[in-house]
Amino acid sequence: MTLGPLMGDMTWPEVQEAISENYNVLLPIGATEQHGPHLPLSTDAILPLMIGKGVAERTRTLVATPIYYGMQSKPLSGGGQGFPGTTSLRGTTLIALVRDVVGELIRQGFRKIVLLTWHMENTGFTYEGADLAMRAAGDTDARVLSIDNAFATTDMKRIESMFPAEFPGWDVEHAAIIETSLMLALCPGLVRVERIVDDEAERHPPYDMIPAPPETIPASGVLYRATLADREKGEELYEMLVEGVASAIVTEFGS
Amino acid sequence: MTLGPLMGDMTWPEVQEAISENYNVLLPIGATEQHGPHLPLSTDAILPLMIGKGVAERTRTLVATPIYYGMQSKPLSGGGQGFPGTTSLRGTTLIALVRDVVGELIRQGFRKIVLLTWHMENTGFTYEGADLAMRAAGDTDARVLSIDNAFATTDMKRIESMFPAEFPGWDVEHAAIIETSLMLALCPGLVRVERIVDDEAERHPPYDMIPAPPETIPASGVLYRATLADREKGEELYEMLVEGVASAIVTEFGS
Amino acid sequence: MTLGPLMGDMTWPEVQEAISENYNVLLPIGATEQHGPHLPLSTDAILPLMIGKGVAERTRTLVATPIYYGMQSKPLSGGGQGFPGTTSLRGTTLIALVRDVVGELIRQGFRKIVLLTWHMENTGFTYEGADLAMRAAGDTDARVLSIDNAFATTDMKRIESMFPAEFPGWDVEHAAIIETSLMLALCPGLVRVERIVDDEAERHPPYDMIPAPPETIPASGVLYRATLADREKGEELYEMLVEGVASAIVTEFGS
Amino acid sequence: MTLGPLMGDMTWPEVQEAISENYNVLLPIGATEQHGPHLPLSTDAILPLMIGKGVAERTRTLVATPIYYGMQSKPLSGGGQGFPGTTSLRGTTLIALVRDVVGELIRQGFRKIVLLTWHMENTGFTYEGADLAMRAAGDTDARVLSIDNAFATTDMKRIESMFPAEFPGWDVEHAAIIETSLMLALCPGLVRVERIVDDEAERHPPYDMIPAPPETIPASGVLYRATLADREKGEELYEMLVEGVASAIVTEFGS
Amino acid sequence: MTLGPLMGDMTWPEVQEAISENYNVLLPIGATEQHGPHLPLSTDAILPLMIGKGVAERTRTLVATPIYYGMQSKPLSGGGQGFPGTTSLRGTTLIALVRDVVGELIRQGFRKIVLLTWHMENTGFTYEGADLAMRAAGDTDARVLSIDNAFATTDMKRIESMFPAEFPGWDVEHAAIIETSLMLALCPGLVRVERIVDDEAERHPPYDMIPAPPETIPASGVLYRATLADREKGEELYEMLVEGVASAIVTEFGS
Amino acid sequence: MTLGPLMGDMTWPEVQEAISENYNVLLPIGATEQHGPHLPLSTDAILPLMIGKGVAERTRTLVATPIYYGMQSKPLSGGGQGFPGTTSLRGTTLIALVRDVVGELIRQGFRKIVLLTWHMENTGFTYEGADLAMRAAGDTDARVLSIDNAFATTDMKRIESMFPAEFPGWDVEHAAIIETSLMLALCPGLVRVERIVDDEAERHPPYDMIPAPPETIPASGVLYRATLADREKGEELYEMLVEGVASAIVTEFGS
Repeated sequence: MTLGPLMGDMTWPEVQEAISENYNVLLPIGATEQHGPHLPLSTDAILPLMIGKGVAERTRTLVATPIYYGMQSKPLSGGGQGFPGTTSLRGTTLIALVRDVVGELIRQGFRKIVLLTWHMENTGFTYEGADLAMRAAGDTDARVLSIDNAFATTDMKRIESMFPAEFPGWDVEHAAIIETSLMLALCPGLVRVERIVDDEAERHPPYDMIPAPPETIPASGVLYRATLADREKGEELYEMLVEGVASAIVTEFGS
Repeated sequence: MTLGPLMGDMTWPEVQEAISENYNVLLPIGATEQHGPHLPLSTDAILPLMIGKGVAERTRTLVATPIYYGMQSKPLSGGGQGFPGTTSLRGTTLIALVRDVVGELIRQGFRKIVLLTWHMENTGFTYEGADLAMRAAGDTDARVLSIDNAFATTDMKRIESMFPAEFPGWDVEHAAIIETSLMLALCPGLVRVERIVDDEAERHPPYDMIPAPPETIPASGVLYRATLADREKGEELYEMLVEGVASAIVTEFGS
Repeated sequence: MTLGPLMGDMTWPEVQEAISENYNVLLPIGATEQHGPHLPLSTDAILPLMIGKGVAERTRTLVATPIYYGMQSKPLSGGGQGFPGTTSLRGTTLIALVRDVVGELIRQGFRKIVLLTWHMENTGFTYEGADLAMRAAGDTDARVLSIDNAFATTDMKRIESMFPAEFPGWDVEHAAIIETSLMLALCPGLVRVERIVDDEAERHPPYDMIPAPPETIPASGVLYRATLADREKGEELYEMLVEGVASAIVTEFGS
Repeated sequence: MTLGPLMGDMTWPEVQEAISENYNVLLPIGATEQHGPHLPLSTDAILPLMIGKGVAERTRTLVATPIYYGMQSKPLSGGGQGFPGTTSLRGTTLIALVRDVVGELIRQGFRKIVLLTWHMENTGFTYEGADLAMRAAGDTDARVLSIDNAFATTDMKRIESMFPAEFPGWDVEHAAIIETSLMLALCPGLVRVERIVDDEAERHPPYDMIPAPPETIPASGVLYRATLADREKGEELYEMLVEGVASAIVTEFGS
Repeated sequence: MTLGPLMGDMTWPEVQEAISENYNVLLPIGATEQHGPHLPLSTDAILPLMIGKGVAERTRTLVATPIYYGMQSKPLSGGGQGFPGTTSLRGTTLIALVRDVVGELIRQGFRKIVLLTWHMENTGFTYEGADLAMRAAGDTDARVLSIDNAFATTDMKRIESMFPAEFPGWDVEHAAIIETSLMLALCPGLVRVERIVDDEAERHPPYDMIPAPPETIPASGVLYRATLADREKGEELYEMLVEGVASAIVTEFGS
Repeated sequence: MTLGPLMGDMTWPEVQEAISENYNVLLPIGATEQHGPHLPLSTDAILPLMIGKGVAERTRTLVATPIYYGMQSKPLSGGGQGFPGTTSLRGTTLIALVRDVVGELIRQGFRKIVLLTWHMENTGFTYEGADLAMRAAGDTDARVLSIDNAFATTDMKRIESMFPAEFPGWDVEHAAIIETSLMLALCPGLVRVERIVDDEAERHPPYDMIPAPPETIPASGVLYRATLADREKGEELYEMLVEGVASAIVTEFGS
């Protein structure tokens, strides 16, 4: 019996066997959100899913079906709720969703649970959901490793140096250099290369406005220069991310 | 610009164009639930997704990313919550999830929304979520077509006659003849053919027990004789289902 | 001290005694919903209450005060929310209501709890409420027997044959032949005999629409031919239903 | 067509007619709670229901099906949650229940809604539910008259003087003089006369304790001397209550 | 190390020490609500906070940071939601807030918890929150003393006699004689003495209306004659309240 | 009439006047959380409150009573929930609390609302609450300026250079150099100077663990070297923060 790594494709006896062998389970948590004219709406779910697959090649890890819908998009980090295609959840919904799924993984017998959260707006809500699930589980030896920012498990300085003249700062990295590079490397068929643009909001304040002033949202939904993206650098980034997440798992869970 | 049909793979300008052309949007709502030793956990999400794809070939329809996690499994219809791999939501979570996603589709401008719900336990909850979204939308000309049982859009007598001596009744159709036939036709690579079994609970009462007596749950998770499944009949069933759902859409939404 | 069967009419020491004698408790769960020009709004609560009373004559069972308000009426099964008098709950409210009441019955010491749910729209929500109550109770030897469709505990073929030429199928049985027959037998004073009508929606699709097209809702609220109702058949139906539910209780709970 | 007054016994066209004639609708809100060894668990629902019926003889008022389950019993006012038979709701459930029912009455077209709340613990929660329903209704000319303490619509001094030497104060009036007198007058068949006792907690502090010290709860559940109850005084009290509530309705709603 | 009494000003080791010495913790629960032209919006939070400080001088008690926002203001007791400055919570929010804070105090190790609730509208909701926290805590020896009406711990007849000709009844005591007297004694700098007015609603019915008729709300927000307030009587009242609450604590918790 | 700036100390006519003059209202949102052996539990509420006061001297701004209780403390940013004194809310509670308070400010007539959130864990939840309030307000010209990180409105490089050899990165800035410096400048009486320590977790991973390994939590609750704090630098920091927030207000709201 081969095991996974995608739980959704597996049968229950296969999952049972993985649990008995103390596999990790990694839950990708993404979003369905505009990513400019060149990247698909599922970008934020595809990326943690692909990283999860890479991690599963290096550790004994199953990859649970991703959470494809995530938090309301904020104008400064994802263009906001004004774009067609952006399909978001309320905070209480996301908390409940993560609580239920993590609670079920614990109930099934998984003891080493990894949350790989993409989409900055999910931060806090996924941790809260996991924390509720853990409290409800009572006395358990299950543990949760919750990664909000997979880049933080890598050498971020090295990434910044990969785009030497142009790295704009992490806060505008949405549908821009890094995500586009990763998608070029991992799902080139989903990148509309001919539509890649450079864009930028007229101003990018260090706080949020509700409603957002139009000049703080780039018309394309691309928060910075996506044309700088590069497939080879995407492959390098992917390798770094897989390695970073896998190392975190080994550090905390042993294998 | 080609359009879809999978929204998750599309960009926001493509979705915008589809909305401006008054496309339907179809949301598959499934579950992650044991389906015996031979079918994958995602069976209940894969089937409405595949039907949605077929419908999109006959009508102007986008297929939204499925809801992969669904309601708590009931012992009599899905084996219950005791199987590894079964990963379910609480009722309030599923209501909120459908409410949010349908609400977002309305906000984006979709006016013809199809819910294609698989997994019997979802019934009621998905309608409630959609109803809440419609109420919140206030004065809107959006409409929702909610299909709880895609088989009801077909000629059910014909299906029963396709399995003449052995049709066990729809209530034990879980990981059994029909679902296995469909998966053989649509995703043969995900069917562990060598593990297909015939099974049946010792008794199958016409009511639910909490907790369920063990003798009401088949050990394999297969509620009836899966060995009767047949790929060709699966293809025929798929054709009937696609035709049934597409016809419902044409009847209600025009195209 | 005589016991019950109506808990609402009993005193606490009487309930205490029943618990100490390991009585069953049966909770009727109904609705307040239009039932045509001839049946009262409480029909869906009266019927399970009356069945409960019958069951209490054959088993050691108390009948808890019914839940009189139930789920939002769906157009295809109850005419929908457009009729005056229909007074419904949201799904989350009904779940919480059943959870609280079942939880309290467990806390008091009842160990054999029967939910007798009428009103098709309640299905799923009452099970969910009971399941939540059972989980909150933790380690308990309480058990819940949840009946969504009391007819399923009877010989349904026999019922269909009682109305030979005219049985329309269970899905349009609302304020029609069967419910009217039962009310004629059980509460004749509440049936406006002179107002019984035959009616039918112009079309009755196998899916739900929100909002419902007017032609799918019969003007009278009667989903089929109520004039075929018959008091004697109502008595026979009642006997069958009481017997069916009592048998289920004996099967699962012993007495 | 005669009208009501019990909505649950009426048909939808009768309710429609009442609405078109601008009837009031009165919703009794009670509880299912121990009332000593002599009064039934439904006492707190029966009393506002009976008052509602009396009011309907003097004003154009329908009486909606009562809310039979109410708030958690507090030890000092109802003996607390320790008695068998006491079957209570959580606060959020009661708020949602009242919100939904009042919202539905507004939607149907009622414009003059009376909440007649018995059971002191319901106070605040029923108002909150009604307030939420009114806010959700938006621009409406519906109005709610919410009575938490029907005695306050009467001459309370006169009541106190009806039990001259012995009136214990309103705070221990539970299953005691007044409620027993009213039940003797209104539902004598439900009063176990031979079991009426005088009782009193060892101490009755002016604050709540969680958990309640045992000495603050009378063993019988009777908070004071029920033997002083008197059927004739019950009739007088009933007349006063009906008159008080009817007068309030006339003052606020005209008729 | 000196201890408190204000938890918000303390460090965690100081709180730890207080817990190890079995200190009480008192949580003032107030509101932010208009109090006429002369008293500040925080009056209902300031008063229980000040009483808490007084209590801490007589018992081993920490005073937790008050809950400054409370329930929706009712027209008859606080002027209602129509005044600028009145900033209120929904019932479900207040329940959750009290549940969380009380739950956290229990988790930290406090075993003797006092809720000192001002603002009549909070009644019921704070008890419910505390009850939920206690249930969630499971087997615990923590106890909660919940005071809804601090005056009830005093000699209320003596208070009424302090304002002999003019005591209007407790139900209109809002921004009137007693609260103004207390604020004159405790926070004279926050009382706009020159703006103190006598006021009264045109009528003050013994029930609530939604929406409230304008004539039931005094224009000033003062429910009675505030000019009768007196600083010395305020000091006497404060002494009585501190003594009453401290006595309750000693009675229930020993010190 | 002088205006504010503390709303809690103001009367309703004063608030009314401020609204009529189109004042901003600033809501400090903090937490009650351990801040080492030297800083008070309310540090995260005191700091935004003090900044709010400073802002009110430069702009026409009222300062609403702070939200003193905030999100669950995360081990890596606040030591986690294991310290006595840390008193936190669940995510759903904080969302509801902010939603209610912001909703009330809008209802009163404020049109320019500033959220000044301290305590990193609050991020996301306060925005969600404000977003819900804005949606519920429907067509409104109210606007919300939501600041999660007040430092981001300043020159962060300058701050880093103020602590040249030792700036540890913003992620361990809890009860450390900057917060201690600010408290020394603003509330020296609340700083236990003699208890200031240098501390540091044994390791500080770039992800969260539930439960947190003990070696990731410093025993003192101080995440870095608090002895480097300096009162004069605290004054400079305060000036920068007040200036940054005031500038943001002027930019977005004009004054």
